[in-house]
Amino acid sequence: MSRRESLGVGLVGAGAMGRVHAMAYAAARAYDPELPPVRLKVVAEASTAGARAAADRLGFERWTADWQLVVSDPEVSVVSVAAPNDLHAPVAVAAAGAGKHVLCEKPLATCAVEAQAMWRAAEAAGVVHMVNFNYRQLPAVQFARSLLHTGRVGRVRHFRGTYLQDWGNDPEVPYSWKFQARRSGAGVLAGIGSHLVDLARYLVGEPAQVVGTTRVWVPQRPVARDAQGSMRSVDVDVEDAACLLLRFAGGALGVLEVSRCAPGRKNHLAFEVHGESGSVCFDAERPNELGVYLPDDPQVDGFRRVLLGPAHSRRIPLAFAGIPVGFLDTVAFQVCDFLRAVVRGEPTSPDFHDGWRVQAVLDAALESDRRGGWVEVVPGTQAAEEP
Amino acid sequence: MSRRESLGVGLVGAGAMGRVHAMAYAAARAYDPELPPVRLKVVAEASTAGARAAADRLGFERWTADWQLVVSDPEVSVVSVAAPNDLHAPVAVAAAGAGKHVLCEKPLATCAVEAQAMWRAAEAAGVVHMVNFNYRQLPAVQFARSLLHTGRVGRVRHFRGTYLQDWGNDPEVPYSWKFQARRSGAGVLAGIGSHLVDLARYLVGEPAQVVGTTRVWVPQRPVARDAQGSMRSVDVDVEDAACLLLRFAGGALGVLEVSRCAPGRKNHLAFEVHGESGSVCFDAERPNELGVYLPDDPQVDGFRRVLLGPAHSRRIPLAFAGIPVGFLDTVAFQVCDFLRAVVRGEPTSPDFHDGWRVQAVLDAALESDRRGGWVEVVPGTQAAEEP
Amino acid sequence: MSRRESLGVGLVGAGAMGRVHAMAYAAARAYDPELPPVRLKVVAEASTAGARAAADRLGFERWTADWQLVVSDPEVSVVSVAAPNDLHAPVAVAAAGAGKHVLCEKPLATCAVEAQAMWRAAEAAGVVHMVNFNYRQLPAVQFARSLLHTGRVGRVRHFRGTYLQDWGNDPEVPYSWKFQARRSGAGVLAGIGSHLVDLARYLVGEPAQVVGTTRVWVPQRPVARDAQGSMRSVDVDVEDAACLLLRFAGGALGVLEVSRCAPGRKNHLAFEVHGESGSVCFDAERPNELGVYLPDDPQVDGFRRVLLGPAHSRRIPLAFAGIPVGFLDTVAFQVCDFLRAVVRGEPTSPDFHDGWRVQAVLDAALESDRRGGWVEVVPGTQAAEEP
Amino acid sequence: MSRRESLGVGLVGAGAMGRVHAMAYAAARAYDPELPPVRLKVVAEASTAGARAAADRLGFERWTADWQLVVSDPEVSVVSVAAPNDLHAPVAVAAAGAGKHVLCEKPLATCAVEAQAMWRAAEAAGVVHMVNFNYRQLPAVQFARSLLHTGRVGRVRHFRGTYLQDWGNDPEVPYSWKFQARRSGAGVLAGIGSHLVDLARYLVGEPAQVVGTTRVWVPQRPVARDAQGSMRSVDVDVEDAACLLLRFAGGALGVLEVSRCAPGRKNHLAFEVHGESGSVCFDAERPNELGVYLPDDPQVDGFRRVLLGPAHSRRIPLAFAGIPVGFLDTVAFQVCDFLRAVVRGEPTSPDFHDGWRVQAVLDAALESDRRGGWVEVVPGTQAAEEP
Repeated sequence: MSRRESLGVGLVGAGAMGRVHAMAYAAARAYDPELPPVRLKVVAEASTAGARAAADRLGFERWTADWQLVVSDPEVSVVSVAAPNDLHAPVAVAAAGAGKHVLCEKPLATCAVEAQAMWRAAEAAGVVHMVNFNYRQLPAVQFARSLLHTGRVGRVRHFRGTYLQDWGNDPEVPYSWKFQARRSGAGVLAGIGSHLVDLARYLVGEPAQVVGTTRVWVPQRPVARDAQGSMRSVDVDVEDAACLLLRFAGGALGVLEVSRCAPGRKNHLAFEVHGESGSVCFDAERPNELGVYLPDDPQVDGFRRVLLGPAHSRRIPLAFAGIPVGFLDTVAFQVCDFLRAVVRGEPTSPDFHDGWRVQAVLDAALESDRRGGWVEVVPGTQAAEEP
Repeated sequence: MSRRESLGVGLVGAGAMGRVHAMAYAAARAYDPELPPVRLKVVAEASTAGARAAADRLGFERWTADWQLVVSDPEVSVVSVAAPNDLHAPVAVAAAGAGKHVLCEKPLATCAVEAQAMWRAAEAAGVVHMVNFNYRQLPAVQFARSLLHTGRVGRVRHFRGTYLQDWGNDPEVPYSWKFQARRSGAGVLAGIGSHLVDLARYLVGEPAQVVGTTRVWVPQRPVARDAQGSMRSVDVDVEDAACLLLRFAGGALGVLEVSRCAPGRKNHLAFEVHGESGSVCFDAERPNELGVYLPDDPQVDGFRRVLLGPAHSRRIPLAFAGIPVGFLDTVAFQVCDFLRAVVRGEPTSPDFHDGWRVQAVLDAALESDRRGGWVEVVPGTQAAEEP
Repeated sequence: MSRRESLGVGLVGAGAMGRVHAMAYAAARAYDPELPPVRLKVVAEASTAGARAAADRLGFERWTADWQLVVSDPEVSVVSVAAPNDLHAPVAVAAAGAGKHVLCEKPLATCAVEAQAMWRAAEAAGVVHMVNFNYRQLPAVQFARSLLHTGRVGRVRHFRGTYLQDWGNDPEVPYSWKFQARRSGAGVLAGIGSHLVDLARYLVGEPAQVVGTTRVWVPQRPVARDAQGSMRSVDVDVEDAACLLLRFAGGALGVLEVSRCAPGRKNHLAFEVHGESGSVCFDAERPNELGVYLPDDPQVDGFRRVLLGPAHSRRIPLAFAGIPVGFLDTVAFQVCDFLRAVVRGEPTSPDFHDGWRVQAVLDAALESDRRGGWVEVVPGTQAAEEP
Repeated sequence: MSRRESLGVGLVGAGAMGRVHAMAYAAARAYDPELPPVRLKVVAEASTAGARAAADRLGFERWTADWQLVVSDPEVSVVSVAAPNDLHAPVAVAAAGAGKHVLCEKPLATCAVEAQAMWRAAEAAGVVHMVNFNYRQLPAVQFARSLLHTGRVGRVRHFRGTYLQDWGNDPEVPYSWKFQARRSGAGVLAGIGSHLVDLARYLVGEPAQVVGTTRVWVPQRPVARDAQGSMRSVDVDVEDAACLLLRFAGGALGVLEVSRCAPGRKNHLAFEVHGESGSVCFDAERPNELGVYLPDDPQVDGFRRVLLGPAHSRRIPLAFAGIPVGFLDTVAFQVCDFLRAVVRGEPTSPDFHDGWRVQAVLDAALESDRRGGWVEVVPGTQAAEEP
């Protein structure tokens, strides 16, 4: 498409991440003035009142309670999907079918089968497709990848990752789709484990085998009081925590721990990777630094704390190291990549294929938890299934 | 002014910080959809070619090499000043005189006399005036202030602050106005010491007395090669580093160290404040956390590492703690505050009065370095001078 | 025994840890002047020359190449075993049989069967027996245990532990008994994994099930050059790294990673434990602090960094927090506990029962690696077997 | 003296540090078996009852309330002085006069004049003299010095040091000689500032000029209730906190902050040194690591966290990095150095000359606080005064 033609955005789902998507689109040209003008056209929410309020709050021109109207809107050329997980597939497939480019929140779907179908639909439609694994966009993560992929630390042997939060620990947190297998697919593995598995793949490659165990730590959640004013509780049927071992196809071992009931851990997405001759470590709570170990001096020997700067990324806001990048920046970088791909008619990444592969690892982890041993990740004819 | 009338922005100076101002204006409505539309009208740079390139790069509609045309532009209602320090006063005074609201980079001026004149001019014109002490906008800094001002840590006794960078250590860094007293006012004290003094005032109150010592560590800087291809060097006449002691009017002591020649320190704006019964500590290289000590448990006794979240600021992008805020966010928050003040016709802060008071501390520090002992900060009739 | 009668010490094995044992005995009365005088009587090493050199270096009165002479020495009342792992059982059983009290290095044995036999022998002989799991002696570890056992953080849900070193990564590190299954039992699991499993048990309780996977990263090690001067290499038959999941009998989950090939990690024995309502975290590279999270203030919410002090341990050398305890201190504390138990004729801990139980977890981990799934820890009639 | 002849130790002052001295002597041969046997002969305390209890607790053979009996005891060859500061000079001078070797706690004296006299007396008597600036003994501090003195970080430009504790903040801490100028010389500058100034000298060289300011934050302290049971308070006449700027003779600048009223800081003896081309930083609360910055890789650029190991010190207890050294180790290393010097009849360091020079800096700081400006450190004929 032309760079001057404005891009109409439709958003399905105006919760917390929907708001961040809207902010990122609205800010995109601040990051990249070469992008065409972006117009927030229409937002869908579950109720008309909610949609109207969202339009007001986020700056959309129109609103609707019917997401079908978003994906079919002729003024909309890109659709962001930030609705509950079980809506990702129907919305994304319909949007792709209508020729819209699609940016979907993570996890891509509720299971690998669904995710694979989304990927096939988007490919078949020839639209740009992307999953918002926004932590990839951190300069620290990209620098880690560059060190790993250029061989600076040798062949990878170990990946240890955690993604820990503690909001789920409060038993007063009310029941929602995040606690429901049918709508969410999985629990914490879907909600944040998907980010961690995506980083494991991005940095180390494909996991081949998984063994895991999970727990529901808060087995019931309250819903709104009924007419008599008594609190009703509903059973949670998805995991609050999961521990996994991975064997990567390339020979490395992985250890993953994911929880939303880890007291004191707020957004502890952290990893450490050991190569044959060096290591990197990262913690998203300190997102502007990367720990790097290279054995280059036997006396002055230790992990370096590298503050990211212009030597590592062209996206640092000022031309020296130590200038922090924030969460909104990462989504804005993602949206800029997405919109540039749309303008140029080129693929981008992480795309729905990445989203599908992450889902396959999560599915294998859940199956291992049920079955009790090591499980192959997407076994069988999968490779043959690729178009 | 009306909330729907668009705001025309003029920018004087399109260097690194000028670009950040432009990004912040362009992104402002992403942060606050209630703001009126913002239009990047005109940018001034030293040369027409530079101005044209900047307009292209930053998304301004027009460009000029004459800043007078910016401040007199009828389509411009707010002016951002991001030119070299010696231009701050003429541009800001002219802009205010033309009825434009002014957002000025730090330091406000090259000396306190100049800064005071700017403040008077802006007040006399009745325009909104602000200085871009953007580190105030970090939720961690605002939380520190709230703990200090609500008495949670008791009366303040000590403030220790550093602002350390290392880019100046490279003798190949070329000569520029930052190394020239006439254009810059001071050296590292102006460039980054102003941020540190602003935070000291913001958190602890007015410094009353200063003693200090400074050093020029790299006494000459190269300029472009001459016709014969030999490198010419120019003497630096402003400090690369400064060490200060402060006595605050409220009785606290302060220790400040500022350097652009501190190997390994990239953007180390850090402080620790001791109150009678608690402490806070902060490092801008880890801007999303605040160290807080409260003696509330004799056994589990230690500094808490508080990750900032919705409990501390409504500006955290997502509704849980540990979601990082970035540098661009801080300037966008500042610009949003500025534009809201413009829309509402209300004062905001940090304003030119703050900028003037910071300058008075810097002037006293330089005078102490020349004279050799303790120096009063803006002594005499200063209070009476206020309108 | 009487407090004034001197205690004769025999040491079997004068390598690095043997030297530390000797230092700890020699220093014991400095730590506790109420102990009887301690005499370093006799040391055994593989060769007479080595034993003589060790006696000289460590201050023993006599030396021998025959450890049988140590355990039967009438002047010896306590025996420390710091020989290769396969000698632990014969030496300890013989010493106990001769009525000597025994302090044995970790791991207690090469397998659980052997360890159980040692425990039975020591109990049958009525001697004091102890295993040198010295990290238990750190005030930080003891404080962690106290927080966990007094319910300050609620019922335990997760234990994550790592013990990472990098010396094994150097392929020039020569072949020794540490790389040989017959003499060492296991590889890194025996060498340092035993410490980590001991801490898991000490803090959380008994592991009931294990799944794990291991790797040999450096498959051959050099031995001394032969007559032709060419380097000969020998195959390593024990693991360099292991990753484990645990299910504790009490319901908690565990994730363990152990490696001697983790570049940059020198002595990274670290753990994090999540309870229902709080967390603790620890790293032996910073042994004088414990991270503690308690949700006691919704605003000032974060992990506290607790510097250990007299509020936590009577063994801190000075009466305020932040005074560091060192490695030698931990072994001296252990030896003092051991000697006090000897004097009082009372049991102490960690004892051979602890050593046996650790071994059972290591055995289960190795079996899981061979078999490929979850393995019960010491299944069957074990409880009935206890005397 | 002969290596086999036993060394008799006399201790004057059996408070907290006196106990640590006693432990270090008792443990000395554990650290260095080549030392002669050490006997704890006699301890002096203010009262006979106190002295007897100390002898019992610390393992001395005899006790006395008259320190003169210690320094004249024919069985005593080395005297440790751990009494209040005003007793350091009389005890040390008398001991030297009696031909005893003297290890004195810091600060050496109550003022530079006194300290100089002690140094002269010890030199005149030809005895070994040492001051217990034990933090010098940390491998991290010695490695920092080696990096600075071998030019790895270039010529030193900045030294920033803090020594912060918080025990003084509690107004219930009773009055003692530490709050009394006549007995203590100074307040926090003497108590812990002396350590910091010693490290500044050890690492950077002699301070030439000082400016400083001090505060008494808790102006009165309680003494024991009188007959009527009411609490009596006494005025404190020494500083609780001090802030100093230094100009070193070699051209570097220094910034020092010392406080015993810094909430949350337990034993925060920390420094950062900037050279022309590198930096080191240290914190005694994490004594087993040194931060080192060397600009050797433009991409992997950052402070290294070096865990001290056998590459840095022969005194690490085990042969790999990350094995912690503790407080008692540092004093034992000091005592071993002292005793080896005694055996060999050689001087050692830090000696009374170091103690005197530290005192001169402290005196200059106090004079600056009184006079209000920069003060020369021991001006005039000092060099000529040296023997």
